[in-house]
Amino acid sequence: MTIAVLSAIARPLLEPRLPDWIEPRWFATSEELLGMVGEAEIGWFDLYSKDDMAEAARRAVKMKWFNSVYAGLDHMPLDVLQQRGVVVTNGAGINAITIAEYVVMGMLNVAKGYREVIRAQDRHEWLLDSPGKRELFGSTALLLGMGAIGSLIAERLAPFGVEVTKVRRSPAPDALAPDQWRAQLGKFDWIIVAVPATPETDGMIGAGELAAMKPDAVLINIARGTVIDQDALVNTLRAGAIYAAFLDVTTPEPLPADHPLWDLPNAHVTMHLSGRAQDKMFQRAADRFLVNLRRYRTGEPLEPQFDLTRGY
Amino acid sequence: MTIAVLSAIARPLLEPRLPDWIEPRWFATSEELLGMVGEAEIGWFDLYSKDDMAEAARRAVKMKWFNSVYAGLDHMPLDVLQQRGVVVTNGAGINAITIAEYVVMGMLNVAKGYREVIRAQDRHEWLLDSPGKRELFGSTALLLGMGAIGSLIAERLAPFGVEVTKVRRSPAPDALAPDQWRAQLGKFDWIIVAVPATPETDGMIGAGELAAMKPDAVLINIARGTVIDQDALVNTLRAGAIYAAFLDVTTPEPLPADHPLWDLPNAHVTMHLSGRAQDKMFQRAADRFLVNLRRYRTGEPLEPQFDLTRGY
Repeated sequence: MTIAVLSAIARPLLEPRLPDWIEPRWFATSEELLGMVGEAEIGWFDLYSKDDMAEAARRAVKMKWFNSVYAGLDHMPLDVLQQRGVVVTNGAGINAITIAEYVVMGMLNVAKGYREVIRAQDRHEWLLDSPGKRELFGSTALLLGMGAIGSLIAERLAPFGVEVTKVRRSPAPDALAPDQWRAQLGKFDWIIVAVPATPETDGMIGAGELAAMKPDAVLINIARGTVIDQDALVNTLRAGAIYAAFLDVTTPEPLPADHPLWDLPNAHVTMHLSGRAQDKMFQRAADRFLVNLRRYRTGEPLEPQFDLTRGY
Repeated sequence: MTIAVLSAIARPLLEPRLPDWIEPRWFATSEELLGMVGEAEIGWFDLYSKDDMAEAARRAVKMKWFNSVYAGLDHMPLDVLQQRGVVVTNGAGINAITIAEYVVMGMLNVAKGYREVIRAQDRHEWLLDSPGKRELFGSTALLLGMGAIGSLIAERLAPFGVEVTKVRRSPAPDALAPDQWRAQLGKFDWIIVAVPATPETDGMIGAGELAAMKPDAVLINIARGTVIDQDALVNTLRAGAIYAAFLDVTTPEPLPADHPLWDLPNAHVTMHLSGRAQDKMFQRAADRFLVNLRRYRTGEPLEPQFDLTRGY
């Protein structure tokens, strides 16, 4: 029997479908997980506490395969997992559809000034003109990061008439090389950050990049708060030097109640909810995990494999 | 010289480009318009007061061509214009792009419960889960009305994975006939009303149609308030018998401050702003008017012509 340590949340989805060579051990709390994870050959654990989740990975000395519903695992001890030769599968793609939907929603909300419409309804006030008068049609977007999410965003923006420029290592007519996009930043109405969180992408949008953007540019971040120099962004938004920022992610998370981003009229804070705005996440993750269990048994490669060296 | 009575708002866009056979008369107020419109052979006047706009049309006894930026002209004395043989061009299509964008925005906002996210930001509260967990992906939409706006909505929804069913007189695989859709209403996650305002469409969504919808159906109206039996809708929303209504239009407009729709948690009131959420409306309208002026001179048909018998 192969011991698999699994979250009790997923039990209704997994238990009826687990193969008979698996001995499941269900945990309901961080404490239970930390107590039992040392026996696991297979571990699927996602905790709201990133510290506990990392500690569980350190304690999982027998673990050969670690699975997570998260796409980004920059909070995990990747070096430890790599030394132990753990195969890691992540949630890449599981949240991609809803995150892509969230990005388009954010662009439209900023374009139409929709937040002010909602506030007007709350006041029972019939506005005579639209607080926002931008169209997506005919606008330009720079898309940083062409993983699953980036591709889905680009597909959805095409019929809106948004000209999307990607950043790619391989040259293409609608793409810029990684050393080209900074010089072109001033051309885009929308800058969409959908890169993985790695040492290379840390702080990739700093004061210089923000200053290079158009005054009516809108910055959208669904990657990690650390990808943007947040202090520089606050200064930029305060100065009105760009039009708005739509931030699904911040540094830190949760954002402290007294942080200036909450009140800036051109900052939209969406509390890392983009991937959670769906009801199929656990179903999709369970389906994928069960397929990978079969592959694990037969020795086929698991998908999607997280690259512990590259960090995504 | 041909006398054209034109709004002073459009003067900067029109005056430098008017042909020399036009004698423009610019009005800034309803009173000025009503005083001068009797001399007009060509009239382009859009007033916020629908009553004044209708009265101006009645007084325009010499008018051969009437142009409007509005798509819906149900407030105008269409019978009078028809008796006088006035050619009418309307704004069909001018607002279509931004209205289509608004519809997708509304669907995404309802799906993700985004209004609650905005309110949470206003309170500096970091939500731990998304207030809305629906995806557009894999959902179904019934699209009533396949004019310019309907087509643009369908195009934009396609890559979201929304299965759009249209209502068409001519049969098609993805379409229902006008006598079929009522029996199918219970199948759709989204019912999007984009029909012209005519006697036939008046009250087309009544208590029976609302009762036939799924409990999690979302009704979107960008047509006219009168297309929906609003009292029946209020009752339906109060009972939670459908999930939500996203209403760009209401009866009357503006909606009185004490109307129950303002406060219903599943009613989204957007104040007829969808077409105004752009900055190109007057430019597009002026461009089209100038093309039609040239056609008027040479006797070519004007476009798009409003059908005074059908009412759209």
